[in-house]
Amino acid sequence: MPRLDDFMGHLAPALGSRRLTNGGPISADLELRLAELFRTRYVNLVSNGTVAIEIAAKALNFRRKVVTTPFTFAASVGALIWIGLDPVLVDIEEDYLTISPDAVASVLDDDDVSGILGVHVYGCPCDVDALSAISDSRRIPMLYDGAHVFDATYNGRPLVNYGDATTMSFHATKQFNTGEGGAVVTSSLEVNSRVSILKNFGIESEDSISQVGINGKMSELNAAFGLANLNALFEERSRRSAVVQIYRDVLSEHKKIRIVPQRPGTVGSSSYFAIRLPVENGFPLRDKVYLQLRDVGIYSRKYFYPLIADVEPYTQHMSQKIFDVPNARRASMEVLTLPLHGGIANEDANFIAKAVMDAIDE
Amino acid sequence: MPRLDDFMGHLAPALGSRRLTNGGPISADLELRLAELFRTRYVNLVSNGTVAIEIAAKALNFRRKVVTTPFTFAASVGALIWIGLDPVLVDIEEDYLTISPDAVASVLDDDDVSGILGVHVYGCPCDVDALSAISDSRRIPMLYDGAHVFDATYNGRPLVNYGDATTMSFHATKQFNTGEGGAVVTSSLEVNSRVSILKNFGIESEDSISQVGINGKMSELNAAFGLANLNALFEERSRRSAVVQIYRDVLSEHKKIRIVPQRPGTVGSSSYFAIRLPVENGFPLRDKVYLQLRDVGIYSRKYFYPLIADVEPYTQHMSQKIFDVPNARRASMEVLTLPLHGGIANEDANFIAKAVMDAIDE
Repeated sequence: MPRLDDFMGHLAPALGSRRLTNGGPISADLELRLAELFRTRYVNLVSNGTVAIEIAAKALNFRRKVVTTPFTFAASVGALIWIGLDPVLVDIEEDYLTISPDAVASVLDDDDVSGILGVHVYGCPCDVDALSAISDSRRIPMLYDGAHVFDATYNGRPLVNYGDATTMSFHATKQFNTGEGGAVVTSSLEVNSRVSILKNFGIESEDSISQVGINGKMSELNAAFGLANLNALFEERSRRSAVVQIYRDVLSEHKKIRIVPQRPGTVGSSSYFAIRLPVENGFPLRDKVYLQLRDVGIYSRKYFYPLIADVEPYTQHMSQKIFDVPNARRASMEVLTLPLHGGIANEDANFIAKAVMDAIDE
Repeated sequence: MPRLDDFMGHLAPALGSRRLTNGGPISADLELRLAELFRTRYVNLVSNGTVAIEIAAKALNFRRKVVTTPFTFAASVGALIWIGLDPVLVDIEEDYLTISPDAVASVLDDDDVSGILGVHVYGCPCDVDALSAISDSRRIPMLYDGAHVFDATYNGRPLVNYGDATTMSFHATKQFNTGEGGAVVTSSLEVNSRVSILKNFGIESEDSISQVGINGKMSELNAAFGLANLNALFEERSRRSAVVQIYRDVLSEHKKIRIVPQRPGTVGSSSYFAIRLPVENGFPLRDKVYLQLRDVGIYSRKYFYPLIADVEPYTQHMSQKIFDVPNARRASMEVLTLPLHGGIANEDANFIAKAVMDAIDE
């Protein structure tokens, strides 16, 4: 959490000038600070991470079908359907849980496919090199949902710099947050300009409307909170890293627990801590652990269950109805994410890790 | 503007509890306060007034065609197209500039029409009685865009209580604001429940996703700002009323100026001050006045120009391409809205009114 006086210091000028939104100086400042941190060209702030996907998809001219993964939060696929697109769900890699480049390649002969949406699951990068190769050779734009990512690097390069654009979430639960908020990150001037117009109702100038747009703007209140949070980021991250280290040390000993790995080459991602627990005799051990943790007041998450490929309100909007996604189905029954935020003390982390093991062994 | 210490007093508990969004106690409190003020059953806070229209349209099961007005801000029609609906634009009433009930009735034989979206332009109510009669007899849901409305009443009843739902905007420029924000107001438990689910990704419970949804939530930061603004509302409105009175007194004398009227029976709406200036020899006097005001640092608005019925990026998404909307076209060339906010002193208002007359007479 940021210091209250730091937040107020950032916000006070906006109250004085009565300029509370519409690309005011505070959000412009935050955009610059984040662009510097990510070593990227453009960070375009928007209302939240879901709106970021809607706007980025429009900015990249996604039409009809978009290849994506079912192993993600409802928002990624939901944003596509919300704006009338038709998601094509393909399977994920068994280890890293990110969209499988082979599976993506296998569906690209359909001329209606106009875009690819990869998701960096729990902050673990997609196989960005393989996906870039496919995207480039087929000339199909590549968008990444980086809601689980902040300033992590992959092979020395900020992860948000891969693909034609990356969407980010600054939701309250993220390591960096603006209460509600998000961004579209891109190195393309053209894409960034389109995002700016799309998030402001399609208005290009006082007398000209060049796109069909919405209100996707972040208010100065949220941007000021973001600036204050940037100043508190080091502390938030130190705490998260300590918690991750404790979880790792304690839980890696248990033979039934598989800690979801990071792709080698990734540095600085501590957005989520995800473990996998086996399905035994048809019953997911994960579900048992989830419930027992809840009974002692620990709120873990069954990320991502139910799997979007099996959620009828979603699939009824897709032209394809049956999906061959065994890795995703399995992960959906096995993964549990543990509490991870800056308010967790070392003793809490030890208590949680021990509670997880007790629940498994009980 | 609210007092800084009042805002911080409302926000402090959220920082303490780390609960910054997802229907926290501050937004719940603001929803109750607003529902009380509007004498309505449900006020459901969302990210902004455009998202409010998207979500309300889905909650009311709008499909395919929706009858609406071209004489509105880009957001009303844009929100419909954004989610894949097909707006049918009909003309407005000559005097009050709101959607014409006769024009609405004339297009309802098309079976694809699934909803009506009226706009209370500049806070002037639509002919809600005639529209309700049409909506009821044809069983087509009626949504109002109340972005220009706050707690005004019409024939003694809060205006937001007409129709199946009303969307509101709490954008920074409104008399009541949350920086960015909006709401869906309804007296239907079912519609309100659907809004709550749609704005939270379609998630009904931990294990159940019952709709395709998005993130339409307001953060606790914005809600706290709203609570503080409610406390400053009396002052904001007194100032606006004084400014309106000065504009009215000074400008009603000028024979070329028509002040856009309020529908009789309306009380308490001072969201906008709109005047009409004639088109002379094919040249809109309004445009000349707009430019001359700008030259002396006064920023009036050509609301609503360009007219959505003539904006190609919008009409290309509509199945109908040519619209018979003479009243809307004329208003689009004649209307100018003058600056109106709580920061305008009486002498500023007199200066602006005089500048308008000078620009006309010059």
